Amino acid sequence: MRVNAYAAPAAGQPLAPTTIERRAIGPNDVLIEIQYAGICHSDIHTVRGDWGPQPFPVVPGHEIVGTVAEVGAEVTKHQVGDRVGVGCMVNSCGQCTNCRNGDEQYCRDGMVATYAGTDRDGSTTQGGYSTHVVVDAGYVLSVPDGLDAAAAAPLLCAGITTYAPLRRWGAGPGKKVAVVGLGGLGHMAVKIAHALGAEVTVLSQSLKKQEDGLRLGADHYYATSDAGTFDELADRFDLIVNTVSAGIDLNAYLGLLAVDGTLVNVGAPAEPLSVHVMSLIGGRRSFAGSMIGGIALTQEMLDFCAEHDIGAEIEVISADQVNEAYERVLASDVRYRFVIDTATLA
Amino acid sequence: MRVNAYAAPAAGQPLAPTTIERRAIGPNDVLIEIQYAGICHSDIHTVRGDWGPQPFPVVPGHEIVGTVAEVGAEVTKHQVGDRVGVGCMVNSCGQCTNCRNGDEQYCRDGMVATYAGTDRDGSTTQGGYSTHVVVDAGYVLSVPDGLDAAAAAPLLCAGITTYAPLRRWGAGPGKKVAVVGLGGLGHMAVKIAHALGAEVTVLSQSLKKQEDGLRLGADHYYATSDAGTFDELADRFDLIVNTVSAGIDLNAYLGLLAVDGTLVNVGAPAEPLSVHVMSLIGGRRSFAGSMIGGIALTQEMLDFCAEHDIGAEIEVISADQVNEAYERVLASDVRYRFVIDTATLA
Repeated sequence: MRVNAYAAPAAGQPLAPTTIERRAIGPNDVLIEIQYAGICHSDIHTVRGDWGPQPFPVVPGHEIVGTVAEVGAEVTKHQVGDRVGVGCMVNSCGQCTNCRNGDEQYCRDGMVATYAGTDRDGSTTQGGYSTHVVVDAGYVLSVPDGLDAAAAAPLLCAGITTYAPLRRWGAGPGKKVAVVGLGGLGHMAVKIAHALGAEVTVLSQSLKKQEDGLRLGADHYYATSDAGTFDELADRFDLIVNTVSAGIDLNAYLGLLAVDGTLVNVGAPAEPLSVHVMSLIGGRRSFAGSMIGGIALTQEMLDFCAEHDIGAEIEVISADQVNEAYERVLASDVRYRFVIDTATLA
Repeated sequence: MRVNAYAAPAAGQPLAPTTIERRAIGPNDVLIEIQYAGICHSDIHTVRGDWGPQPFPVVPGHEIVGTVAEVGAEVTKHQVGDRVGVGCMVNSCGQCTNCRNGDEQYCRDGMVATYAGTDRDGSTTQGGYSTHVVVDAGYVLSVPDGLDAAAAAPLLCAGITTYAPLRRWGAGPGKKVAVVGLGGLGHMAVKIAHALGAEVTVLSQSLKKQEDGLRLGADHYYATSDAGTFDELADRFDLIVNTVSAGIDLNAYLGLLAVDGTLVNVGAPAEPLSVHVMSLIGGRRSFAGSMIGGIALTQEMLDFCAEHDIGAEIEVISADQVNEAYERVLASDVRYRFVIDTATLA
């Protein structure tokens, strides 16, 4: 099956319209007619070659929402017409300890990324900037009716990336949670942490987005460019979710954690970070990392977001605006996520 | 009250016999006739000036076991004749969140260290290399009858330092725990983790102490000088307790953690460590630190050790052997803790 898509032909080249082949629908597969695909910073890193060589042409997109168009003979989980989503992975071994524990993203054999990955049949995966995709039913999520389809797309990556650490480290009533950075990930972290019942503080370089932050659910908003912030908030937080991938002064942020607090990175800076161990020992603190979440947790997140009426703040674009949108993401000129209306690819 | 003690007169000077003044017994104080005082590496760091200027002369010693000789009018917790212990702290504010949560070691006002600290009355504290000490009853532990007095002394620092992270991060049946380094701290970590029901692996530079490690309760013993160890044990452990204060290749050790695993440092290297955040993100792992433990947890640890017949492996020395013992600790020539028989000071 040949379908329309937008692909990067080579590292650093602009994306352009193309067609790609989708595999025949196997007995466990679902054919999805894509409606929306979010633009994640990872898409940009990948096609620009920041993360090493890629199997070009690459069709990015791992924040996918669409409708089931056809199902394989053995699929019972999804039916034609269902609204579904696909996130950052489309397969894994299913057998290892991590897969069996519902942490497919940590599959010992390596999860299969939604694009630029090698699927278990040896083919190269292509992502959501496309009209259709064929995915193993086990990696297809149900998108509850209550969610707006376009605003739900970013939940499949930005949503689960922030929901997973908030749940893992117990964000909820009585807990003080800080979110570092108010971008695509940060704004989801604020909404979700607030909905979980935590007291939420945004730590942003400036107060430029303060009004947004408070509207999205933050209780407090501080500028990290103000050194007084680090004194005032010392020993304050149970959990800090750092959504900034650039290097930060980790020890300064660790000093904001209460005893038993955790600072969790959801992005990885290119360079290693320097940790004064005393920053940890001095409060039985932890520095942690978290990467998206397993399939069951992603479904839990979607259901939670539907229940709490949470979607991403989005700007819907047509496919031919993708390159311009990339420039704006790089310039931090988006509040807070671009979503491609893939009907414009038809 | 003037009592005999062994003190370092100045940074880097050998310890020598002296007398020091102990304060009058206040209404909440306990006068302890000291029987044994363990030698902790911290004692050596302090008197050598590794940790900055100190209020010399310094009487080290924060692994103290003795007998109650007298109690203040308002003391009900301890009685004359009781066997008691004192660890790394002898006071704290008692009012802050951390004190109220039983984490007096993280007192927001600063805990009062057992020696070379400034007590809340402004006096300088002096430690356990002495015949007697006066301590606020709230910071005096009960040492159960089942424990050998000399072997119990190191529990007050090495015991709680390792017990606290093992408990905090859930060492127990079904958990795989690694202990890095088989020294004063490491050998306690092995004994306690084993008694808690965990599967225990020692990671030591060489196999020199393998026989000891297995005898003390380890199930497995690996040499970290063998690079194959890091391949073989990849993704293995739920918890790694790092007792080595020297810098380590943190990312290599983080690779040994299973998903959701934690590597906890109980010592702080002088230099910051370099962390590749991907080492954490790639398994939702944590790098943490822990410093001794609160008073209630220290009592729990002593009771646990009595119940499981756990004491330190010790070599009892007389006070005049202290300087020689220090040299041997620095040369890692002790299995596994020196304990001073303070009767030799009388």
